[in-house]
Amino acid sequence: MRKILFLIFIFPAIVLAQMPNITSVKQYTESKQHEIIRSYVELLSIPNIASDIKNIQKNADWIAGYMRSKHIGNVQLLYPTTPNKPPVVYGEVNTPGAKETVVFYAHYDGQPVDSSKWYSGLHPFKPILYDNAFDKGGKQIDWPSNDNAFNPMWRIYGRGASDDKGGVMSIIEAYAAVAALKLQPAVNIKFFFEGEEEAGSTHLEEILNRYKSLLTADMWVICDGPVHQSGKKQVVFGVRGDTHLELTVIGPKRPLHSGHYGNWVPNPAMELSKLLASMKDENGNVTIKGFYDDVVPLTASEKEALAKIPSVDEQMKNELGFRKSERPTSLNTSLNVPSLNINGIQSAGVGEKSANVIPTKAIASIDLRLVVGNDWKRQQDKVIEHIKSQGFYVTETDPTDQERLTHEKICKVVRSDGYNAQKTSLDNLFAKRISKAVAIASGEDPILMPTLGGSLPLYVFEKVLKTQPVTVPIANHDNNQHAENENIRLKNFFEGIEIFASIMMLPK
Amino acid sequence: MRKILFLIFIFPAIVLAQMPNITSVKQYTESKQHEIIRSYVELLSIPNIASDIKNIQKNADWIAGYMRSKHIGNVQLLYPTTPNKPPVVYGEVNTPGAKETVVFYAHYDGQPVDSSKWYSGLHPFKPILYDNAFDKGGKQIDWPSNDNAFNPMWRIYGRGASDDKGGVMSIIEAYAAVAALKLQPAVNIKFFFEGEEEAGSTHLEEILNRYKSLLTADMWVICDGPVHQSGKKQVVFGVRGDTHLELTVIGPKRPLHSGHYGNWVPNPAMELSKLLASMKDENGNVTIKGFYDDVVPLTASEKEALAKIPSVDEQMKNELGFRKSERPTSLNTSLNVPSLNINGIQSAGVGEKSANVIPTKAIASIDLRLVVGNDWKRQQDKVIEHIKSQGFYVTETDPTDQERLTHEKICKVVRSDGYNAQKTSLDNLFAKRISKAVAIASGEDPILMPTLGGSLPLYVFEKVLKTQPVTVPIANHDNNQHAENENIRLKNFFEGIEIFASIMMLPK
Repeated sequence: MRKILFLIFIFPAIVLAQMPNITSVKQYTESKQHEIIRSYVELLSIPNIASDIKNIQKNADWIAGYMRSKHIGNVQLLYPTTPNKPPVVYGEVNTPGAKETVVFYAHYDGQPVDSSKWYSGLHPFKPILYDNAFDKGGKQIDWPSNDNAFNPMWRIYGRGASDDKGGVMSIIEAYAAVAALKLQPAVNIKFFFEGEEEAGSTHLEEILNRYKSLLTADMWVICDGPVHQSGKKQVVFGVRGDTHLELTVIGPKRPLHSGHYGNWVPNPAMELSKLLASMKDENGNVTIKGFYDDVVPLTASEKEALAKIPSVDEQMKNELGFRKSERPTSLNTSLNVPSLNINGIQSAGVGEKSANVIPTKAIASIDLRLVVGNDWKRQQDKVIEHIKSQGFYVTETDPTDQERLTHEKICKVVRSDGYNAQKTSLDNLFAKRISKAVAIASGEDPILMPTLGGSLPLYVFEKVLKTQPVTVPIANHDNNQHAENENIRLKNFFEGIEIFASIMMLPK
Repeated sequence: MRKILFLIFIFPAIVLAQMPNITSVKQYTESKQHEIIRSYVELLSIPNIASDIKNIQKNADWIAGYMRSKHIGNVQLLYPTTPNKPPVVYGEVNTPGAKETVVFYAHYDGQPVDSSKWYSGLHPFKPILYDNAFDKGGKQIDWPSNDNAFNPMWRIYGRGASDDKGGVMSIIEAYAAVAALKLQPAVNIKFFFEGEEEAGSTHLEEILNRYKSLLTADMWVICDGPVHQSGKKQVVFGVRGDTHLELTVIGPKRPLHSGHYGNWVPNPAMELSKLLASMKDENGNVTIKGFYDDVVPLTASEKEALAKIPSVDEQMKNELGFRKSERPTSLNTSLNVPSLNINGIQSAGVGEKSANVIPTKAIASIDLRLVVGNDWKRQQDKVIEHIKSQGFYVTETDPTDQERLTHEKICKVVRSDGYNAQKTSLDNLFAKRISKAVAIASGEDPILMPTLGGSLPLYVFEKVLKTQPVTVPIANHDNNQHAENENIRLKNFFEGIEIFASIMMLPK
């Protein structure tokens, strides 16, 4: 009742138009739940590591067949020019009279697996049903007979259940429900299911270019990732960019006895520590000159959206076991700022591998996250200028003898590739309509998240197709994506179907 | 001629008495060089890793038999109470009328070996003759027939050739020459050849206690290590003490995505870097409160000795490939100060093992070298107090959830065992006499080195026997001790025999 009042208050006209349709979709999927889950489990049973091209092809063929069975048109596999790479599974539905086109994106490949790490009885490619998360006391249960309904709190364990075959299937089932119910989509619909997202989307840009004419659209809707830690649905408008630097501070040519030479031969681990320490102050501010200069300030809408996000700060501090955040701002505010993180440090050995040495080198792997305004190469440059300002000679290769004897401190810097942040305006009219569609389906305003802290190469959609995407995640927050014991809660999956159906049907 | 003038100038009376004797020893060992080297090679052929108790016993038995064959008295093996541990090989010679006793120490065990790392054709326990160091263009040569002399620049490659079977054999051969020539030792002589020095001298203190009555003496002469990098002989009066701390800065309970949490969850690798950076200034001074407080200042004699040591600073900088030393003082002066060195750092992974994480912890292994005045436990305390002063909560164990939520920064500190420095006064009369004996044998003043930078548990001789040792190394500086391709230059070995004979014969 509260939800209906909310909806009537916010979008009276839309509610009138759409509420019955969403209810129909919900009833339809409930009535078909055994068929839907049987198909989903069939897909989850096909191994889906991007490098396992034989099985990847099986996944693509299965999805293409399933789409055809749901009367999706022009189904085809889009390959890059490089042979033996995962294809995109493409399909489309043209809606009579529709002038606008929305592409629904998900990916069918999954993160690499180490079966031995999965919880006893679980296996990445043998989907198993649990009555709750096993680490919350859940137990394995049998698949119910057709006479018994699935409980929405049950979970399916398997690689890709959440990330992101759940996305693929909820999008297809959303259209299947709309079509079966003879409801009218509001837009032309395209389906784009990638097969190497977890391997870095290496051929995504090439495929977008190669099949540009097929792929033009007014909006891309990305289904990937989890809902908000608070459990609320979210619509995400951007991602941070990302790039890396590897710093190696150079020490003596051979490992030296720390007794015979300690106090006299410079220690590269100490020099690296001082260098890293110089990069951030005690409040988590990066002290590198100009580090924050290019940042495009948050818009009024973004500030407003951030202020509305329920705080999970205390919840996360308890869960992760720490008292004070690095920056004195909230988690979500902190993610709207570029960051510098040490991903790893290594110099000689510690613990049982420790020896009485002055190490020959000390290495740090540095991660730079970027927000809109930052250019990834320019951000690397700022760090390198800072290293120089700390008295280091910077080289891209191992130093020569001559360089060693010329410079007091030497740091070898290796740049990785990178890409910039992408952000769609919260005021983008299409994005607003999608947010409304999510609100209608879930009965409450979704969280409008200006950016994820993490990174995806979403800039390619802007670059190649001049289209700004929004991301609509559906998976439960505790889905263990990228790790062992990946799972999806059925409630999230079925609500996902309703959300995508709502987006497909949303009028202007 | 220059050498004779030098000797007449410095010690006219001693020179008159000893010069002919040293010349006789030199002629005698030259005449017996094939026998001496044959025996030496026989000993080098017996594997001598302290943990290989069967072969260690063979070494001890061989040395005991060889000592008996040279008419050394009361030869016996001194065992600790723990079974299956390497024995000390002991022997003695009583000199009629002598009131003083000198113990000659060396060790017959060697550093562990990895045969696969040795240069092609070399093997740790198959001694091979080269006409120069192989890395200086030397070639393998056949062992010469009895009609052909060994060239003093030739080298024998094999584990223990320098460290320290060369010490064992040069001491025995020194006495053998003195006895064969019917020269009169000036002191009672004891022989003490340890069998687990490279395994940490774990039972040395116990053996000294157990056989105290056999081992009382006026002076211990330690033969171990190399001569000075300048090539000059040296007499070493002390060693630094040593202890370790392992610091673990605590991060989030699980590895976190550096995108989704970077800028908000504190990064333990950064906190560790800041902590380590706070421990030393840009001139290599340790900034920990009271770090230098207990240091007993150098005596006038020590300062004078340090000033006389030929500088190898430029040579070592070129060899090791760096421009500026950590402290603005010379190598040898720097080694007379306590040090703090990072032996290793590790946090998550770098290079191919790098991942986009905020690490769960960051570890540093810290080496503390001590000089006389420092107490190893107090030195550890100072570091721990410093960690606290940097805002860390210090614990000896992994933090509880409660501790994690109570303290902003947490550092787990694990203390290692340690021992203090040992130093014998340069004004010790016995030590002065030994320096003179070395001068007579080698024809020039040895370097008087107040302390080695490295550490040996020499404090046990003071502690158990109330006797201060001096160290008289004989091996060439480039002998590769503790590494593959260990070798000795024959010149160093034969000069060692003359030096120890000279010490044995030195009158007051």
